Amino acid sequence: MKPDVLNLAEKLALIDDLWSPRVIAELNDYQFKLTKLEGDFVWHSHDETDEAFLVLAGTLDIAFRDRTVTLNAGELFVVPKGVEHKPFAPAECHVLLIEPRGVLNTGDELGERTAEPNVWI
Amino acid sequence: MKPDVLNLAEKLALIDDLWSPRVIAELNDYQFKLTKLEGDFVWHSHDETDEAFLVLAGTLDIAFRDRTVTLNAGELFVVPKGVEHKPFAPAECHVLLIEPRGVLNTGDELGERTAEPNVWI
Repeated sequence: MKPDVLNLAEKLALIDDLWSPRVIAELNDYQFKLTKLEGDFVWHSHDETDEAFLVLAGTLDIAFRDRTVTLNAGELFVVPKGVEHKPFAPAECHVLLIEPRGVLNTGDELGERTAEPNVWI
Repeated sequence: MKPDVLNLAEKLALIDDLWSPRVIAELNDYQFKLTKLEGDFVWHSHDETDEAFLVLAGTLDIAFRDRTVTLNAGELFVVPKGVEHKPFAPAECHVLLIEPRGVLNTGDELGERTAEPNVWI
């Protein structure tokens, strides 16, 4: 199957819930996921992988145990493997995540905020 | 070392040449690279990996042997492993590339258009 050109804004328009990453493409065994975030999330870490956040719209804070970083639209941040973090978005924010196939949004903290992985739009 | 927030526009402003990808971050053994493109490139393929193009500004055409796709700002395309392609930018265009560490811009076609890999900004 021939790959499509993926328009991020068009794909984002298909998402009507928060904190539920949707896969839009794969690069080898890595996935590009779009998600809308607003409010607080849970502390968690991904013990097997780094995780990249590219903010497309809005502002995303990522809290670590020793600091908080703030990402605005057009900014990229790679959370290192195994480092506890907690995203927080003061208002709705749109993010492109890049990480290996099958990574859970809550990492090691399975619970009510854990979204189903591998859901495509 | 603690990772930085990477502002793509600020990083792009540091690039003053064309067709020379600059690494800005790593995600496990993958790299995020920024590049400015204008004009024609060479036919090539990457026999070991897919290659992702996210256009940040301008327009990028990617020719394949059987079709050409056009990417505008905010559009993502993953070139499948082993598929011959030739990027062409009618005017200066800014691209974020995502691919494994060490991939050459000309893939299997070593020559005068081959840029040094692993150059960071």
